[in-house]
Amino acid sequence: MNLPGARAEPARALLEVQAPVREELDRVPRAMWRIVSADNALAASVTDHLMAMRGKMFRPTLVLLCSAADDAAPTARAINLAAVTELVHLATLVHDDSVDHSALRRGQPTVNSLFSHQVSVIMGDLLYVHAFAELVRDADFEVLRSVTRASTEMTVGEIQQLAAVEALAFSEEDYEQLIRAKTASLMSAACEIGAIAGGGRHRTALARYGDRLGRAFQIADDLLDYTEDSGTTGKPQGLDLREHKMTLPLIAALRVVSPAERRRVELLFAAAAPDDQLIADVTAIVAESGGLDYARRRGEAYAEEAEEALAELSPGPIRGALTEAIAYVMERRS
Amino acid sequence: MNLPGARAEPARALLEVQAPVREELDRVPRAMWRIVSADNALAASVTDHLMAMRGKMFRPTLVLLCSAADDAAPTARAINLAAVTELVHLATLVHDDSVDHSALRRGQPTVNSLFSHQVSVIMGDLLYVHAFAELVRDADFEVLRSVTRASTEMTVGEIQQLAAVEALAFSEEDYEQLIRAKTASLMSAACEIGAIAGGGRHRTALARYGDRLGRAFQIADDLLDYTEDSGTTGKPQGLDLREHKMTLPLIAALRVVSPAERRRVELLFAAAAPDDQLIADVTAIVAESGGLDYARRRGEAYAEEAEEALAELSPGPIRGALTEAIAYVMERRS
Repeated sequence: MNLPGARAEPARALLEVQAPVREELDRVPRAMWRIVSADNALAASVTDHLMAMRGKMFRPTLVLLCSAADDAAPTARAINLAAVTELVHLATLVHDDSVDHSALRRGQPTVNSLFSHQVSVIMGDLLYVHAFAELVRDADFEVLRSVTRASTEMTVGEIQQLAAVEALAFSEEDYEQLIRAKTASLMSAACEIGAIAGGGRHRTALARYGDRLGRAFQIADDLLDYTEDSGTTGKPQGLDLREHKMTLPLIAALRVVSPAERRRVELLFAAAAPDDQLIADVTAIVAESGGLDYARRRGEAYAEEAEEALAELSPGPIRGALTEAIAYVMERRS
Repeated sequence: MNLPGARAEPARALLEVQAPVREELDRVPRAMWRIVSADNALAASVTDHLMAMRGKMFRPTLVLLCSAADDAAPTARAINLAAVTELVHLATLVHDDSVDHSALRRGQPTVNSLFSHQVSVIMGDLLYVHAFAELVRDADFEVLRSVTRASTEMTVGEIQQLAAVEALAFSEEDYEQLIRAKTASLMSAACEIGAIAGGGRHRTALARYGDRLGRAFQIADDLLDYTEDSGTTGKPQGLDLREHKMTLPLIAALRVVSPAERRRVELLFAAAAPDDQLIADVTAIVAESGGLDYARRRGEAYAEEAEEALAELSPGPIRGALTEAIAYVMERRS
């Protein structure tokens, strides 16, 4: 499963997705720096760290591609909106890591562990507030509405996660709401504001594409937690189970497990710090009960809906790249 | 100094300030609830707590009064903007308390102590994001610019405070920047957006009034930390010194202290947990060196500038209330 050759593919696939907007994408980091305008040493140092550990720039890629639908050229404005989208994403990551007391993200130390809890709370605020100020300068209420709606959904999703006390009662419907809130909402907004910057023609279709892509993305992410080791993903395997997070593979498995298997799962969720054996047992139960297969099928269904949403775009390199982005989401391993 | 009769006065003064907009002010809490739209139990419970411990509603009072300058009636829109302003203020308080690990605010338990650090980070985000979403619905870029500028200033001020490592090198200029950022920026925005909601006539003058009022407010606050006991202010006396925060009285005192007195101050700033005797000694040094008098004079100068900014308003109950607000700020004890 984890042959080096196979592992290299998703990175290559991402480069292909980004190819039509490569030049503009390379200008996004400078736009991010300009927007954060880190004029004191601490903010500059944290921003530096965040830029260095910055991930795949997947959301900016979506903004730029969607701004160029029907093979137009991405505009300078789209580069700015791409930067704003990544800053909002980084703000949520910084606050998430602060809330979860996570020490690592993408194999790199988090802001809260490298600097402090204090710095991570305020830096998250700083990223948010600079991103919004930039949108106010951009002065388009359609864009503002799209991004504030996504931000609201993400934050409400976070508080719902904090409020969920009985993990085992977490239903597939709850899970659907959660992945919409935490991942699909911002990807949908990224595609929508890209479309707006490109003239607005495919706005509804691309917002839908981003939503379905985001759902598939999060399901794939939750599957990785069950299937990949930490060397690949940069985080400990079975972390979700360790942290008592219910994701789709387990939700699906719980419908068909035997009473004995269910007791193992309950034992894990009752343990403050479940041991590796228990994690391994429940991981095996989920796989044997068809939980992984079920989640894969749901992910594939969303991937198909994402592709269908692209039907109204003219065939060409941009539609090709957006289609490739779906494959990248489904096949990535980190 | 702390006779019960004298202590009651500021509260009475505030009621007088609020009298011309009493009816509208009483509608602000409901608008806040509507905007936060706390649709899950945890968010509702935190909002409930914040509303119960809500303070003097000073910023909403400013929005409403400024919307009614020249004795017009405050508009429904001004009530909404007043609610947004208080939500932004609450968001900063919640994150400040989280950053400082404060257990009490206004004598009440903070969100981080009553709920958790996690809840306070996310609830602060929730208040911010709902407030901004409401401004986007309000759809006035002048208002959005004013509030995002204040939010940016507040957040940058916070990160500068975190970054300041050598407290004793903190200058009066640094202090002026800090009080603008943490207090004057939002009070100025409150007055400015009130003026905009009222038609915009006195916008520049009222923004200036709010700035000067805010500076006077923060200097008065920093003086209270030296002069009042915890029974009056709801927080431990000498807390700023205990937390190694440099405020104007000490900055002024340090210019004239003897080498021996300076060593006492240095000792306090070098102690991780300075004892009560050391706090009392430095408090006395500040008073005897004229630090309190200096800060009072600076506060009075700002109070005068605030009053001067009102000169272009028609005389009447609203201008009277805004003038009264200056006196309230200067005389309050908690």
